Amino acid sequence: MIIDCHGHYTTSPRALEDYRQAQIVGLKDPAYKPARAKLAVTDAQIRDSVEGAQLKLQRERGTDLTIFSPRAAGMAHHVGTAEVSLYWSEACNDMIHRVCTLYPKNFVGVCQLPQSPGVPPSTCIGELERCVTELGFVGCNLNPDPSGGYWTDPPLTDRWWYPLYEKMVALAVPAMVHVSSSRNPCFHYTGAHYINGDTTAFMQFLTSDLFKDFPTLKFIIPHGGGAVPFHWGRYRGLALDLKRPPLPELLLGNVFFDTCVYHQAGIDLLTKVIPIDNILFASEMVGAVRGIDPETGQYFDDTKRYIDAVPFLGPADRKKIYEDNARKVFPRLGRKLAA
Amino acid sequence: MIIDCHGHYTTSPRALEDYRQAQIVGLKDPAYKPARAKLAVTDAQIRDSVEGAQLKLQRERGTDLTIFSPRAAGMAHHVGTAEVSLYWSEACNDMIHRVCTLYPKNFVGVCQLPQSPGVPPSTCIGELERCVTELGFVGCNLNPDPSGGYWTDPPLTDRWWYPLYEKMVALAVPAMVHVSSSRNPCFHYTGAHYINGDTTAFMQFLTSDLFKDFPTLKFIIPHGGGAVPFHWGRYRGLALDLKRPPLPELLLGNVFFDTCVYHQAGIDLLTKVIPIDNILFASEMVGAVRGIDPETGQYFDDTKRYIDAVPFLGPADRKKIYEDNARKVFPRLGRKLAA
Repeated sequence: MIIDCHGHYTTSPRALEDYRQAQIVGLKDPAYKPARAKLAVTDAQIRDSVEGAQLKLQRERGTDLTIFSPRAAGMAHHVGTAEVSLYWSEACNDMIHRVCTLYPKNFVGVCQLPQSPGVPPSTCIGELERCVTELGFVGCNLNPDPSGGYWTDPPLTDRWWYPLYEKMVALAVPAMVHVSSSRNPCFHYTGAHYINGDTTAFMQFLTSDLFKDFPTLKFIIPHGGGAVPFHWGRYRGLALDLKRPPLPELLLGNVFFDTCVYHQAGIDLLTKVIPIDNILFASEMVGAVRGIDPETGQYFDDTKRYIDAVPFLGPADRKKIYEDNARKVFPRLGRKLAA
Repeated sequence: MIIDCHGHYTTSPRALEDYRQAQIVGLKDPAYKPARAKLAVTDAQIRDSVEGAQLKLQRERGTDLTIFSPRAAGMAHHVGTAEVSLYWSEACNDMIHRVCTLYPKNFVGVCQLPQSPGVPPSTCIGELERCVTELGFVGCNLNPDPSGGYWTDPPLTDRWWYPLYEKMVALAVPAMVHVSSSRNPCFHYTGAHYINGDTTAFMQFLTSDLFKDFPTLKFIIPHGGGAVPFHWGRYRGLALDLKRPPLPELLLGNVFFDTCVYHQAGIDLLTKVIPIDNILFASEMVGAVRGIDPETGQYFDDTKRYIDAVPFLGPADRKKIYEDNARKVFPRLGRKLAA
């Protein structure tokens, strides 16, 4: 079985985006009162939105199940108030639930959290709980920078985040650390902000004792871990200089990397340097890079091809990357699949 | 000949740091008037500061010449006013000049610029010109985020920076894009902010026509280009999606990467993915990571060992990385060495 742990609903029905646009326009009016979405979306529209995209690619590429979450750039937690963020998150998560209900063998949900810059993450607990216990979701996406590129909230290792982590642990759900769009003109979103968010989160974990406080808390760092595997020697050396424990002991029981790296040399490095137990298959499709690589004639984001081509991986290694590690990091997924 | 294009004076004499501390303490007093440094540093103190560090490592590792600049984290352009930054930059650059004068075969200077957040970069032209024309420096370090981790100044591709670029082109000096310390608790400086700065700058270049306006302007992105080589497929794909020219045409005549990547697998990837003409040898010594890798028994930052061990590089490739590319990117260095 091949589980893709990082897929976004980038093709969601027009009505969802219309609702968001109404929110954004509404915010310009001082008298605006945010309201919950009531979207008239038919099952046929949902089917249409994935049949020619994520489902088609699953079939073509030979993957089985996508852990599916709302469009990452669309989260834009910096837009409006916490209430605006809540209603938007609910609408996005409900739409994911519709997809998962129609295609229970193909999609399992991961939720967007109603974060808002400067607002305690504990306010996200209700929506996390709803998504996990009522909608059957198996994880969440956690934005380490709700400000959208100004990094004004505390690091992920600050006690600011602890109430949310307590709930994650209680529910047995991991978080993918994933920034959203950037409103800072210095940062292109998919080309800089995403990758920087990954690198930043890893270094926050490296310098803290978070996993002493939460031994079972689990994070997936997407996009192959940002810059981390390429600089693995730097991080091992920094841990040593900073008198931290070796990385396996310090964080490799809690921090995992996905395979959204879009060329063979990158996947070769990732799978060589990072322990196989810490790598989860993912493609980010339909996502950041949509074209065909003129050097290979294949889609850049068809990451399964790269993993299949790594010369030093054996069948047991591939099975871990494709399936076993996802079952381990998402315990609720494991239980769902066993049921 | 082996030229290390990225060395910092991290071991400078105590008097320099004392001057800086006096500035920082002074800034707490509203009546404080910044004053130029008058440092009583002897030649013996300068010799002492490098003999047991950078010079010793040059000899031990078999490198010949270090392109030498003030401590990067020490630049801290966010401290105080532009005047404070100017006096501090002058003091740091003068100290580099002392080293280069005492050891003209071992060190060539690159200057710190007196940047200050929100202040036009054109104010740095005077110090750049002084360092190049009077002190014989061959380049500068340019901080893409003088705010120290909040990224409040415009991207490097904005016209904001153009007057400085005009002077760089007129003087035929490149810039290494190098952030300084981080005052943002989200970013560890050497583990996150440095690497993010590299990735961010590359993506700024990718999305702009800067090099149409300045066809001979040259930048070195340090730390192996941040996350860029690891995600080279992503960047090629993003350029395609964004309808930009292919990367060689778009920026590889202007953007270069150093080899400050501290493990074999990282250097293997860098030299495999990035054209050899775009890679300059560097070790960042004495710098970010000072320890010995328990896996190899060698210093993490002894990057020459990794380059020597890349199986697919031939003698002509290594000569480019070690020498020819540095002469090309730093034309004033080439002329100095020919003299």
